[in-house]
Amino acid sequence: MLKSIDHIGIAVRNLDESLDTFQKLLQFEDVHRESIAEQKVDIASFKIGEVKIELTCPTSDDSPIAKFIAKRGEGIHHIAFASDGIETDLKRIKSEDIRLINETPLRGAHDMLIAFIHPKSLSGVLAEVCQRK
Amino acid sequence: MLKSIDHIGIAVRNLDESLDTFQKLLQFEDVHRESIAEQKVDIASFKIGEVKIELTCPTSDDSPIAKFIAKRGEGIHHIAFASDGIETDLKRIKSEDIRLINETPLRGAHDMLIAFIHPKSLSGVLAEVCQRK
Repeated sequence: MLKSIDHIGIAVRNLDESLDTFQKLLQFEDVHRESIAEQKVDIASFKIGEVKIELTCPTSDDSPIAKFIAKRGEGIHHIAFASDGIETDLKRIKSEDIRLINETPLRGAHDMLIAFIHPKSLSGVLAEVCQRK
Repeated sequence: MLKSIDHIGIAVRNLDESLDTFQKLLQFEDVHRESIAEQKVDIASFKIGEVKIELTCPTSDDSPIAKFIAKRGEGIHHIAFASDGIETDLKRIKSEDIRLINETPLRGAHDMLIAFIHPKSLSGVLAEVCQRK
């Protein structure tokens, strides 16, 4: 089941500048930083209530996030829902005729299993289903 | 202070169709519906964990949400942060050189006080600060 929002992904051009502004706005204390080589991004994430905000910055022009920014500009990229059983949830979602980008989970940030739902199936929203290992 | 995410606003073309798909995905039980005449929108909102998702559908072509959809398509419109003192938060945010769209709070859905931060000041993210009366 999908019981909460795990994180909101935001595509940014300059990780340090964006982090500084969000820090001024939200006054969080702890920041987690990570590089994900497969997706060619650097990430800085922090918590606000039960939800993480994940600032994601491309490290190469052929990163999917670089392509998103080139097309739409910086901004909110996706919403990730926390799953307690990703394989079961993906089967259930597919059976509801909601189109999956990934029918088999991939490895994401924080060493989670993740899969994306196609925005054409969900009112233009790119949604991720994720499960902590 | 801004301590949690109150809701995520999603701009949709057909409220009932979008609600039906999100219901299949997230299996929530309760839905709140509201019409906001001033903003020319109908809203359907539901909770996932501590966060509400607010599907927002224009009722007129000159609604700000209709203009958003015409320009960018359906999708995530804004993130709203819950404030425990909106006047104080807006002053603090302004003093940090983060640009406000509304320096004085307006009335939003759920009879809340709301003000928007300009996306140019926040990595392309349209953010709302909101306080329950």
